[in-house]
Amino acid sequence: VEVVGYAHRAETRRKVQALDLLDSVTGDLPASVADAHMIVLATPLSSFAEIFATIADRLAPGCIVTDVGSTKMMPHRWAAQYLPKTVTYVGSHPMAGSEQQGIDFARDDLFDGATCIVTQRGRCLCQAATCITTFWQDLGCHVVAMSPARHDRLVAGVSHVPHAAAVALVNATRPDWLHCAGKGFLDTSRVASGPANVWADIFLTNAESVTTGIDRLVKELTVLRNAVARQQRTRIENLLNKARQRRATMINEKLKRKELLK
Amino acid sequence: VEVVGYAHRAETRRKVQALDLLDSVTGDLPASVADAHMIVLATPLSSFAEIFATIADRLAPGCIVTDVGSTKMMPHRWAAQYLPKTVTYVGSHPMAGSEQQGIDFARDDLFDGATCIVTQRGRCLCQAATCITTFWQDLGCHVVAMSPARHDRLVAGVSHVPHAAAVALVNATRPDWLHCAGKGFLDTSRVASGPANVWADIFLTNAESVTTGIDRLVKELTVLRNAVARQQRTRIENLLNKARQRRATMINEKLKRKELLK
Repeated sequence: VEVVGYAHRAETRRKVQALDLLDSVTGDLPASVADAHMIVLATPLSSFAEIFATIADRLAPGCIVTDVGSTKMMPHRWAAQYLPKTVTYVGSHPMAGSEQQGIDFARDDLFDGATCIVTQRGRCLCQAATCITTFWQDLGCHVVAMSPARHDRLVAGVSHVPHAAAVALVNATRPDWLHCAGKGFLDTSRVASGPANVWADIFLTNAESVTTGIDRLVKELTVLRNAVARQQRTRIENLLNKARQRRATMINEKLKRKELLK
Repeated sequence: VEVVGYAHRAETRRKVQALDLLDSVTGDLPASVADAHMIVLATPLSSFAEIFATIADRLAPGCIVTDVGSTKMMPHRWAAQYLPKTVTYVGSHPMAGSEQQGIDFARDDLFDGATCIVTQRGRCLCQAATCITTFWQDLGCHVVAMSPARHDRLVAGVSHVPHAAAVALVNATRPDWLHCAGKGFLDTSRVASGPANVWADIFLTNAESVTTGIDRLVKELTVLRNAVARQQRTRIENLLNKARQRRATMINEKLKRKELLK
């Protein structure tokens, strides 16, 4: 296997070379994909359409293109629009990474036990999907397959709405109070330190599910708020216990699947 | 120094003895406080009034009483109501601990770098407050002093509202989606695994600040939601960058104060 990298910035290419991570790295995008059997696009979503258009002419027939974008309906649409019929696009969303950006935060255990969602549109393109599934499994991921539409609804719930909650939480808190924030606040707000352009892309390419999800969150917050305002202990304890039990079930299932360590 | 423990359950007392944590441990509450110079109450808030009433007759003159409850206005009120004038009550809120409960999750580094808020009502009772401040500093805490009213407003923002957000987030997410939740969801929702009775006490004894705080959070969520619905990229990026910068400032200040490790 020969691994060829493309990076926009000369500084990034120098770091890749210094760390000896790839067989070669270039700043020439069309050249980087020539003769490739498989391509992994790992740039912000808003760059996908242009990159697909730029590489389309240079893709070898039978090539498999995937990406690591956090929404999947729009990437499938751009792939259908810009990529030639001779190549296969399969969407990937490895649910790993942190709020940090760039090669300085690379870790070789990043995918250990992470869930990776693999998406396909239309008829089953079994060979390409199997290849991509094996790729992520070899990196340590637990792979789940679904349609791009289901992916975007589901991931709005478990990732995009939590991100919106973290951002709103930080912005709703008076800055002069933050010196007393403890570990709870740090964890609850952690994802809000993620890159603004990447998350704006995610929100904008999944607007319907994100707005519906925020509406559900606001409704739940309002139910809890009203129970507190009315001093309804039983109702408050029921809401807290429901969340506690759901989270315990989720964690137990992740332990069983070895996605979490004890 | 002689350290005497009180625990309601025989099982807990057996564990304390097996771990050799204290000089002695008893199930007799009034006996446990007799002759004490300092008392630390570490039970759910809803038990404070009854415990203060039970121990009042047995407290030695000059004794200092504190607690580790997460709200402070009600404990000060109960102390004024039930404790004799010959003892001094100072409120403490060490902002440490996890979503886990009980002696099995005890850690000797729990307070390292944690913020501890110390509260006093009315005129300065300097000797008692200095004693309690030194106590928490010796355990590794960064101590901040303020009034109980300011404590309850501030902590609603950095702890109680984030808790409400975590609970609402879990309850707003379809349980069959949680198998795809990643590290972001786990961190954002972690505190929702905390004990329901303890958190119901907190919400009920800080209802005004909690409801005001949830209202602020809902307002921020709605601003972000509307920007997403209207595809306003600049507005979304501004909101995300505001949160990102505020969180970066908070973390830098914590690093400077050595409350966080690099």
